[in-house]
Amino acid sequence: MAQTWEEIGAARRASLAERIPPEYRLPPNIVPPAGQRNVTTFPRESGWFSQKELEITDSTATVILDKIASRTWTSEEVTKAFCKRAAAAQQLTNCLSDIFVDEAVAIAKALDEHLNTTGKLVGPLHGLPISLKDNFDIAGKDSTVGFSSLVNKPVASNATLVDLLAKLGAVRYVKTNVPTAMMIAESVNNVFGRTVNPLNRELTSGGSSGGESALVAFGASPLGVGTDIGGSLRIPAACTGIFTLRPSLGRFPTQGCTSGLAGQEAVASVNGPMAKTLEDTILFAKTVVDSQPWLLDPKCLPIPWRPIENKTKLKLAVLWNDGIVVPTPPVTRALKETVEQLKKAGHEIIEWDPVLHSKALQLLGRMFVADGGKSVEALLAPTQEPMRPEMQMYKDATDLGVHAMWQMHLERSKLQKEFLEQWMSYDGLDVLLAPTTPFSSVAHSGLNYVGYTGVFNVVDCSCVSFPTGFIADKTKDQAIAGHKPLSDYCKDIHSAYDPDLVDGMPISLQLIAKRLEEEKVLAMTGTVLQAINS
Amino acid sequence: MAQTWEEIGAARRASLAERIPPEYRLPPNIVPPAGQRNVTTFPRESGWFSQKELEITDSTATVILDKIASRTWTSEEVTKAFCKRAAAAQQLTNCLSDIFVDEAVAIAKALDEHLNTTGKLVGPLHGLPISLKDNFDIAGKDSTVGFSSLVNKPVASNATLVDLLAKLGAVRYVKTNVPTAMMIAESVNNVFGRTVNPLNRELTSGGSSGGESALVAFGASPLGVGTDIGGSLRIPAACTGIFTLRPSLGRFPTQGCTSGLAGQEAVASVNGPMAKTLEDTILFAKTVVDSQPWLLDPKCLPIPWRPIENKTKLKLAVLWNDGIVVPTPPVTRALKETVEQLKKAGHEIIEWDPVLHSKALQLLGRMFVADGGKSVEALLAPTQEPMRPEMQMYKDATDLGVHAMWQMHLERSKLQKEFLEQWMSYDGLDVLLAPTTPFSSVAHSGLNYVGYTGVFNVVDCSCVSFPTGFIADKTKDQAIAGHKPLSDYCKDIHSAYDPDLVDGMPISLQLIAKRLEEEKVLAMTGTVLQAINS
Repeated sequence: MAQTWEEIGAARRASLAERIPPEYRLPPNIVPPAGQRNVTTFPRESGWFSQKELEITDSTATVILDKIASRTWTSEEVTKAFCKRAAAAQQLTNCLSDIFVDEAVAIAKALDEHLNTTGKLVGPLHGLPISLKDNFDIAGKDSTVGFSSLVNKPVASNATLVDLLAKLGAVRYVKTNVPTAMMIAESVNNVFGRTVNPLNRELTSGGSSGGESALVAFGASPLGVGTDIGGSLRIPAACTGIFTLRPSLGRFPTQGCTSGLAGQEAVASVNGPMAKTLEDTILFAKTVVDSQPWLLDPKCLPIPWRPIENKTKLKLAVLWNDGIVVPTPPVTRALKETVEQLKKAGHEIIEWDPVLHSKALQLLGRMFVADGGKSVEALLAPTQEPMRPEMQMYKDATDLGVHAMWQMHLERSKLQKEFLEQWMSYDGLDVLLAPTTPFSSVAHSGLNYVGYTGVFNVVDCSCVSFPTGFIADKTKDQAIAGHKPLSDYCKDIHSAYDPDLVDGMPISLQLIAKRLEEEKVLAMTGTVLQAINS
Repeated sequence: MAQTWEEIGAARRASLAERIPPEYRLPPNIVPPAGQRNVTTFPRESGWFSQKELEITDSTATVILDKIASRTWTSEEVTKAFCKRAAAAQQLTNCLSDIFVDEAVAIAKALDEHLNTTGKLVGPLHGLPISLKDNFDIAGKDSTVGFSSLVNKPVASNATLVDLLAKLGAVRYVKTNVPTAMMIAESVNNVFGRTVNPLNRELTSGGSSGGESALVAFGASPLGVGTDIGGSLRIPAACTGIFTLRPSLGRFPTQGCTSGLAGQEAVASVNGPMAKTLEDTILFAKTVVDSQPWLLDPKCLPIPWRPIENKTKLKLAVLWNDGIVVPTPPVTRALKETVEQLKKAGHEIIEWDPVLHSKALQLLGRMFVADGGKSVEALLAPTQEPMRPEMQMYKDATDLGVHAMWQMHLERSKLQKEFLEQWMSYDGLDVLLAPTTPFSSVAHSGLNYVGYTGVFNVVDCSCVSFPTGFIADKTKDQAIAGHKPLSDYCKDIHSAYDPDLVDGMPISLQLIAKRLEEEKVLAMTGTVLQAINS
């Protein structure tokens, strides 16, 4: 008899636990109590890691690459250190969908041997472990994207980016958890369950790249790759205080990945790096573009990595709120303080009018369900897996038909035109500064608003989410007295806001440039951080 | 009582005739007999044009711009000369959908005055008349795209390209005829009727930019702009022996044009120049890109015009036939002779395997009718205009539904991947040399195969169609003895091939580069022409 979806999930979770080598399983006596919120302290406090393992895994990707290149460290020891830390991350936050230590170590050893024999690096990412979101196909492994029907259905070939990273010298070692179909803003599904935030396990690590964000924030990956169709890179990055770049379609290869909405093109799913530093984010972006991915993936554009002139005075627009949701107090405070610092540093600040945001967000929702939820249903049906409650809109939807879809494309193109016209109307505008989400983070099941990110997917902007350095503070951040919600979303979000629960959480913001201005938005994130820290 | 579609068409044709100023209406005694095939001799032989009018209208765009800039000619006299020649073209080939002499002359005069007053050009196209395909919206004028329901429905605003060309200094003076919905490979519709080929009026000028090709080939436009979704620039250019560039989506602005399949995005409609010289084709392309259209149209890519290194030895693949249709003898001969000349000049020639062409062409057809023909039907319905027989596929179609559409996107993306892989497998391949159509040209109603062009729309390649200088020759080109057709298309095409009828017609070929390699394919067209003429 066929297994039920519950049985498939249970078996897959058991098999994942078994894929962690015995020596990387946490001794029960050092496992933090279930009630311990912050587990990022575990590596340093548990005594389970050697000094060298800590040194390695606390280093940035840039430093690691230097140390491997100079043969200070081997890729093997680096890979093993990250595998061990990733195993801990999994046991404490449930952030993985797969781990393959033997394979990773074999790749790392081969790279070490190559360097020892030839004196040469195989590429600019030589020896660096890079973690991958579950949907990046790796031949012979599952890409379940949270569906029980895709468990034990190993894919036939590698995603283009997986091949490319390998060619550049990266070591793959884990895949990370996602929500069902990658269409929930947290990371929960019926196979692997829920990923929690290592900074506070009562909070979400965001989604859909929330396995990745938890792993990176735990220090268990020097560089991860996630995807974003409505905020799936930026929301989890913001929930965990790390950096990410949501590029415009065409800079990084997207070919050969598994999707919950395969073939949907009205709004593009893109992928990008997640890292603890801006420098590492840039490293990934520049390295991938320098490899000329347009010779591999026809959706990539032949745009080389472009040097950016250092601009000392920026013109920034600030989005205080999007007209639908007022950000929670920590985010509003971080935005205010950032703007103050920017002004102090001599940058010009204007206000962004969110006149198009409601329309854009509504369009985004309609695009996701344009097929009547059939793609999702087709992935649930084989195992009779139920639709998750967060995905009710897929259940309620009906197939639009192609003719109506074409009319929706026209609406979207009109909005894209109006957005560009608005941008150009703010003469000389460099970038837009905005919240990434209304929250620093929020308790599980609280994150269901993607308006601050999704709008920029519709217009395909280059966006960075970055930790400001500001921290949620229950003494400074009080719920707005007599808050008059702008919408039901606004009401829900301010009900879910709990100053005590998020106390101490990092607060991120988003910097947005026009379409295909990745170099610019990354460089200007550096300028903004400089202003904050001056 | 509402007018019938026939009455609307008749009234619109009458009004078009009236828009030609009396002084530009051909005196009956000089009108060539209806049976005269070639009317391109008319301007020089009729005595109706002054020497200066002939000198102006026989000049290239580049020369005209120089002479206006140096104040040798005024824009006013240039514009009037082209208006007059366009009026003749209309009366002899039925190539226009609109003409607005007064408006054009007013624009030209203002430009002249600007130059006289300031000593400065308003832009790089200062004073140059540029003709536009019917679907480029001009505020206050119809964009009927051949539908009676769109007659006397002036559009509200200019297409982005129309505004841009005006800003660059161009003078608009005519719009040119198209087939219904721009979805037939000839230029015939129920409003304006059929455009004929000025080189031989028994032959088609191609479509859908066949009003434009007839106008340019007649010498009545120094530079025209058409569009292409399956060959609509290249087929008419080939039928009339002129140059065109079918760019990849994103180099030239497409925003604000009227479409027969509005909102269709699975394959992109793009626009490009049509001109009598390669130099003028490049002039248009470089000028438009240099104007940074990505600041106006969000579908445009921020890719500047890139200088091309002069490569003396090219690697070319040749497509002898696409596995579906064997080109007619003139085209095959031109291809052979071109290949011989290329070899003689030291270029490397390999063969292109058309393994993907049949699949690509089939996908293209399915994309066009994915909405079940509803877009076309909605444009026919208001006047109960019947579907033209060439468009039966739109009548037969049913709306696919979005879910099935997404699956088709996946098929197309797979094919795009395979195409790029095939290209890259021919190590160092520069360009592909292929027929543009199986014909030099063909009698009216004979052109219904778009396989040689449409495949490259599916993969969004940069393509040039160029006249080889070879000419159909009934003594050299005999129907293939015992021709065994590859398909029904092949059979029809070889039945339609008439060596006598096409005798003397120019033969064009197509040069194809990868996606977004416009600079390269244009430069290499020059290299190919050099080889042919050496």
